[in-house]
Amino acid sequence: MKRVAVLGATGIVGQRLVSLLGNHPWFELTAVAASEKSVGKKYCEVVRWVIERPMPAKAGDLELLPISSDIAREKIDIVFTALPAEIAKDIEIELARQGVIVVSNASPMRLEPDIPLINPEVNADHIEAIEYQRKIRGWSGAIVKVPNCTTAILTLSLKPILDDFGIKKVIVSTMQALSGAGLTGVPSMFILDNLIPFIEGEEEKVENESRKILGRLKTDGIALNTSFVASASCHRVMVLEGHTEAVFVETERDVVIEDLIRIMEEFRSNKIKGLGLPTAPEKPIVVRREIDRPQPRFDRMEGEGMSVVVGRLRKDYALSGVKYVVLGHNTLRGAAGTGVLIAELMVKKGLA
Amino acid sequence: MKRVAVLGATGIVGQRLVSLLGNHPWFELTAVAASEKSVGKKYCEVVRWVIERPMPAKAGDLELLPISSDIAREKIDIVFTALPAEIAKDIEIELARQGVIVVSNASPMRLEPDIPLINPEVNADHIEAIEYQRKIRGWSGAIVKVPNCTTAILTLSLKPILDDFGIKKVIVSTMQALSGAGLTGVPSMFILDNLIPFIEGEEEKVENESRKILGRLKTDGIALNTSFVASASCHRVMVLEGHTEAVFVETERDVVIEDLIRIMEEFRSNKIKGLGLPTAPEKPIVVRREIDRPQPRFDRMEGEGMSVVVGRLRKDYALSGVKYVVLGHNTLRGAAGTGVLIAELMVKKGLA
Amino acid sequence: MKRVAVLGATGIVGQRLVSLLGNHPWFELTAVAASEKSVGKKYCEVVRWVIERPMPAKAGDLELLPISSDIAREKIDIVFTALPAEIAKDIEIELARQGVIVVSNASPMRLEPDIPLINPEVNADHIEAIEYQRKIRGWSGAIVKVPNCTTAILTLSLKPILDDFGIKKVIVSTMQALSGAGLTGVPSMFILDNLIPFIEGEEEKVENESRKILGRLKTDGIALNTSFVASASCHRVMVLEGHTEAVFVETERDVVIEDLIRIMEEFRSNKIKGLGLPTAPEKPIVVRREIDRPQPRFDRMEGEGMSVVVGRLRKDYALSGVKYVVLGHNTLRGAAGTGVLIAELMVKKGLA
Amino acid sequence: MKRVAVLGATGIVGQRLVSLLGNHPWFELTAVAASEKSVGKKYCEVVRWVIERPMPAKAGDLELLPISSDIAREKIDIVFTALPAEIAKDIEIELARQGVIVVSNASPMRLEPDIPLINPEVNADHIEAIEYQRKIRGWSGAIVKVPNCTTAILTLSLKPILDDFGIKKVIVSTMQALSGAGLTGVPSMFILDNLIPFIEGEEEKVENESRKILGRLKTDGIALNTSFVASASCHRVMVLEGHTEAVFVETERDVVIEDLIRIMEEFRSNKIKGLGLPTAPEKPIVVRREIDRPQPRFDRMEGEGMSVVVGRLRKDYALSGVKYVVLGHNTLRGAAGTGVLIAELMVKKGLA
Repeated sequence: MKRVAVLGATGIVGQRLVSLLGNHPWFELTAVAASEKSVGKKYCEVVRWVIERPMPAKAGDLELLPISSDIAREKIDIVFTALPAEIAKDIEIELARQGVIVVSNASPMRLEPDIPLINPEVNADHIEAIEYQRKIRGWSGAIVKVPNCTTAILTLSLKPILDDFGIKKVIVSTMQALSGAGLTGVPSMFILDNLIPFIEGEEEKVENESRKILGRLKTDGIALNTSFVASASCHRVMVLEGHTEAVFVETERDVVIEDLIRIMEEFRSNKIKGLGLPTAPEKPIVVRREIDRPQPRFDRMEGEGMSVVVGRLRKDYALSGVKYVVLGHNTLRGAAGTGVLIAELMVKKGLA
Repeated sequence: MKRVAVLGATGIVGQRLVSLLGNHPWFELTAVAASEKSVGKKYCEVVRWVIERPMPAKAGDLELLPISSDIAREKIDIVFTALPAEIAKDIEIELARQGVIVVSNASPMRLEPDIPLINPEVNADHIEAIEYQRKIRGWSGAIVKVPNCTTAILTLSLKPILDDFGIKKVIVSTMQALSGAGLTGVPSMFILDNLIPFIEGEEEKVENESRKILGRLKTDGIALNTSFVASASCHRVMVLEGHTEAVFVETERDVVIEDLIRIMEEFRSNKIKGLGLPTAPEKPIVVRREIDRPQPRFDRMEGEGMSVVVGRLRKDYALSGVKYVVLGHNTLRGAAGTGVLIAELMVKKGLA
Repeated sequence: MKRVAVLGATGIVGQRLVSLLGNHPWFELTAVAASEKSVGKKYCEVVRWVIERPMPAKAGDLELLPISSDIAREKIDIVFTALPAEIAKDIEIELARQGVIVVSNASPMRLEPDIPLINPEVNADHIEAIEYQRKIRGWSGAIVKVPNCTTAILTLSLKPILDDFGIKKVIVSTMQALSGAGLTGVPSMFILDNLIPFIEGEEEKVENESRKILGRLKTDGIALNTSFVASASCHRVMVLEGHTEAVFVETERDVVIEDLIRIMEEFRSNKIKGLGLPTAPEKPIVVRREIDRPQPRFDRMEGEGMSVVVGRLRKDYALSGVKYVVLGHNTLRGAAGTGVLIAELMVKKGLA
Repeated sequence: MKRVAVLGATGIVGQRLVSLLGNHPWFELTAVAASEKSVGKKYCEVVRWVIERPMPAKAGDLELLPISSDIAREKIDIVFTALPAEIAKDIEIELARQGVIVVSNASPMRLEPDIPLINPEVNADHIEAIEYQRKIRGWSGAIVKVPNCTTAILTLSLKPILDDFGIKKVIVSTMQALSGAGLTGVPSMFILDNLIPFIEGEEEKVENESRKILGRLKTDGIALNTSFVASASCHRVMVLEGHTEAVFVETERDVVIEDLIRIMEEFRSNKIKGLGLPTAPEKPIVVRREIDRPQPRFDRMEGEGMSVVVGRLRKDYALSGVKYVVLGHNTLRGAAGTGVLIAELMVKKGLA
C-alpha cells in the first residue's frame, strides 16, 4: 500500500479524491490538509460533504493538517493536490524536491514541456517525461498534472478521430456544471433561470492543453501537436455535475459516421490496456445512439464517472468533418478520477 | 385600426401575441382561437397566463373561436398564427386565398422562394416578394413567415458582419430556453439538474433559414445566400426565456474587434429606419462589454425583448474570424415580437 | 420464487417497482403492463428510464402487456399496481377475485375498513384484515394498499411519538418532490423559480389515511385512530425526489427532546423485527443532529430510500408538544419500496 | 425633497432601496455607502445589479462612501440601513444621536419597547413610540425598524383575522426565497434539487416580532400582544424572490370562509388610509380564488411587490380556525418597500 495525502481535501475535487482514495486497493489515505481555520479538526467535522456516496469512515477521522509541503514528513509516497492556482506551484515544487510524487489538479505549469499532462487513455506514454523533468529540475520526486476538466473530456473523444481521420480544426462550445466552480463558486441568485457565458481562463486552457495532451513525447519533453487549432467558448449552466460539450471537427480525411461510431466504441487505448488499473473504465468512450443523449443527469456516472459519453455523431458540412456532443463527469474524469488513474499508472510502471 | 386575430392564442407564443396586440396603437385584437376544448369559453378562463405583464383586459373577455380559416368571417385584416406545424399550412393557405394577410410563426413553407421570411432589420425588403407570391399563387391575401427563433436572433447579429466583413462559415451552438418548447413541452423531471442536447428540426432550420434571410430578393422570389455555410448544434437548458448562442464566424476579411463593436452598436438597419414602427427597438443590437454578459435573466428584456444582446466579441483563430455570444428573447424577438413588427412594416408599406 | 407483475410499469412508480423487483431474492418479475400504445413492444424500448440505477436487463426484455386483469393468466402470484385512480379499482377487484394478491399504489378503497393500508414498521399487524376482507368480499386473492407517499413518511415518524407520548393534534406542511406528480406531471415552465401550493387530493389523504394507519385492527376491519386530528397543507417544490414535511405535534404528555431522539433512534418496530424482510431498512428512522438537515438531495437515499430522516426536533410552545422536519423518499418509502416491503411481509406470513 | 442615504447599498436589500429611492417623488437619494473595498468607486461600477428594472442613472453615478455614522455630514434627513446585524446597532444609535431618522432593516433592537417595529398597514400608530424613545434615549433623531421579511408578510395577512375573529395560536411553515439570504448567501451547489430546512434566527423572529407588531402602543412603548402564541418552521427553497407561508390559525370565534375572504379583500387599513403614501399598494391583501395560487413567480409583483397575496383559505379542523397560504415579495414588502413606506409615513406625519 502506498501512503497518500490530499492537499485541499474539503473542496469538491478534494472530496472526490477522499472518496476514491478512502477505499482504494493500492492506496492508504494517510493525511488530509485544508485551510488554516480547519487545521486540527477532524475531517468529518469540517467538510460539507456533497458526494453521493458516504464518506469513508477512516477518512472522516483524520485530523486536518495545514496546507504545506511539511506534509512530506508524514512519509507520504504520493500527494494529490486540489489547490487554488495561486498557492499550488510553490508547495508542489517543494514536495517534488523532497522526493514526493505530486499528482496535481492545479493549473500552473501544465504547459511546461517537462511536466507530463496526462489523460491516461490518450497519452499515458507522456509519463516518461518525468525522467527528463528530474534531469533538468534535479528533483527526486516529480510533478504530474491532471488536465483541465473540459479538456480531459474533449481530448478523450478526439483521440480516436485524430488517430483514424486526422484533425485540422476543433471548435468546442461547452455547457459546464456548477461543481466546476467549487462548492461555493456560483451563488444561486446568479444562476437560477440563467446561465453565465464565461469561465475565467477556461477557453485558453482548452485551446492550449488539448494540443499538449495530443502532442508527442520527445527526449526533451512533450511537443505540442500543431497539426490542428482549437477554439473554445465556455459557459456555465445549472447542472450539478457533468460538462457537456458541442464539438465541431474539421478532419483531414472524410468520415463515415458508422465507421467512427464503431471506432469509438472499440476504443480501448493501447496506452493503458492490460495494466489492470483499478480506476480505468472498461469503455473509456461510450456511444449513445438515442437522438437526445448524452444528458448530464443520466449519463455522467457512466463507467463510475470515468467514461465519456458521446452522442449525436453526424457529418459537419460547414467544416468538412464531424460534429457531436460529448459529456463527462467533470470532477471524476475531469479531475479526481483522472488524478487517481494517473497515480495507479505510475505505481504500475514503477514510477511511484 | 386594423382588425387582427390570433390563431393558437393560449400557447406561449399566442400569449405573447395577445399581450403585444392587446394594447397596440395600430391593431385591434378582434378574435382569438384555440383548440376544440376551449372554444366558446372566455380567453381569461382558459389560458394559463405566464407573461410577466397583466393580460390585456379586453383580450381576456374575448370568446375563443375554433382554429379554422372561418375566422376570416370576422372581417380580419391580419391573422397571426402560432399553430403546430401539422395543421398550420392548410389553414394559412385558405386564409391567404380569402384575402387575409397571414403572419405565421409555423415552420411549413418557410423555405419556399415566394414566401417572405422576414427578420425586419435584416431583410425588410424581402416583403416585396408577396407580389410574386400573389402572381403565382393567385391569392388576394398573402403569407409572410416569422423565422425560427434561434435563426432570428442569429441573423440579426450576423447582418453587420456580413455587410462589413463577408461571411464564409458560421458555427453556432445554442443554449435554448424552455419556453421554446411551449408551455408544457419540457417536463421538469427531465430537465432539472440536466440539459437536453437535441431539439427536433432546429439545427436544419438554423442552417437553412439563415441563408434565406440573408439572401437576395429577385423577381422570382428570394435567392439563398450561398456565400456561406452554417452548422448548428442545438441544446435545451433550464432557463425560462432567452436563447443564448455561441457563434463562431469565418469572415472573408480580417476583423478588428473594436471596429466590429462600433459597427454593431451603430447598426440601425436602413431596412426599416425612419418608418416609425412601434415595435422596432431603438437599438436592434446591444453590445455588452462586461466579460460575463449577455445573461438570459438580466439581458433578455433589452429593447422590450426586441434587441439582441451581443457580448464576448473576440478573434477566432481556428476559423480566421470572430467568435461571440448572442442572446435574444426567443418568444419576443424570436417569435411574437417579430411577427408584430412584420405586420407593422406591411401596414406602413400599404401591404396590409 | 413468487411470480410477480407490475401494472403501470413505465411511470415513475412503475420504474421503481421494476428496479426493485428485477433483482429481488424472493420475486421473479414475470410480466409488465403499460398503456395501449406501448403494448407488444419491449419494456426497454418504451420506458423513459429515470432511475439512478441501470434497468434490470431481464426486465428490459419483457414485452409489454395491456393493463387488464387478464394478466392473471400469466400465473402471477402478486400484482403490483401503479395505476391512475380512475382505472385501478375495477382491475384490482377483478384480480383479487381471481385469486391474485394485489399490492396497490392507487388511492381508491384505501379507507375501506377491510382493506389493509400498510406502512409495515407502523402497522404490519393490519395485514390480518385480509381474512375479514376475504370473508365479506368472497375473494380468494386480496387487495392491500400502499399509503399515500406523504402519509407513509409522516406516520413512520409519528409512530414512536404516539406510542410514548400520545398525540392530540398534528399539523403538517409539506414540500413535495416533482416525481410525486409522475414523469410529466409538472411542466418546467410552471415550476422553475416557483412553487405550487396545491396538490390535488393530497391534504385529505394525509388527514384521513394517517388515522387509519395509526388505527387498530379489529375483527371487522381497521378502526380509525380518533384520538388525534391532523391538518395538512401540501406544496410542490423544485426537488426531483424526496418529500420534506414540517410537522407540529400536540402531545398528551410532555416531551423531553433528548428522550424523543433516543426513542426514535432506537425505533426498530416490533411489527416486523426479526422477520428478515429484504427491503426493510436497518433503521426505519434516522435522526440527524445537524441544524440544517434533513435535506432531500443528501438524505433521501438513507436506508436505500426506505428510512425516513428526522431533524430539527424541538419543543413546540404553541401546541404544547414538539415540532420537527421529516424527509422521506417519496417513490421508495412513499410508494414502490413500501409496496415491495408489504409483499415480503405477506410472503413471510404465508399470506401470498 | 428629503435628502436620504442608503447604508449597505450593494446588497440585495440595498439595491431594492436604491431602485425605489432613485426615482422617488419625495426623496432625493444623496449618498450610498458600502464595504471598505468599494469606497471611492462609483455605485454602478461596483454593484452586481440583480433588480428587474434598470438602475436609476443618478444613483449609478454616486460615489460610494464608507459605512459609518459620518454619513450624517452629508446633511441627510433619513438614512435607510441594510447592514449586517453585527455592525448595525452602533452606527444606527450614533446616527439617531446626531439627529438623523434611521429606518433600519437590521434585526438588533427590534424587540425593544421604545423602538417602533412598523408594518404600516398593520401598526402605523406605533410610530408614535419615537416620542417615548427620544425621551428615554435623549436622541434628536430616531430609530424605526422594518420587521423581519417573513413576519411582515405574515402579520399583514393576520391583521384582519385578529380584528374580526381573534387569534389564539398561529402555526406557520415557510418556503423562503434565495434573495432572503443575500446576493451570495446560498451557493447553487447546495440548493439545486434540494431545499434547506433551516434559516438562522428566523423562527424566533417570526414568533416574537409578530406579537410586537400586533401589540399595542402605550405611553411607555409597545406592549406585546400576548393573546396568541406563534410557532414557526422556516425553510429555504429554490425561488428567486417571494416568501410563501402555509399558515394555520386557531381563532377565538368561528370563521366563515366567505366572510373572511370579503374582509381581507376589503382590508384597506385605517392606519394609513387617505395619507396618500406613494409606496402604499391600493390593496394590501389580494385574495386569489384559484385553487393553486398564490405562486411566487406569478404573484410576487402584485401591488408593485407591496401587496401580499392570500390563497387557499379554508377551515382548519385540527386548530378550530382557518388555514391558508400567503405570499409576499420578501425584499419589497419584506424589506426595502416597507422601509420606504415607513419613511413616507413619517414625512406625512411630520416626524421626518
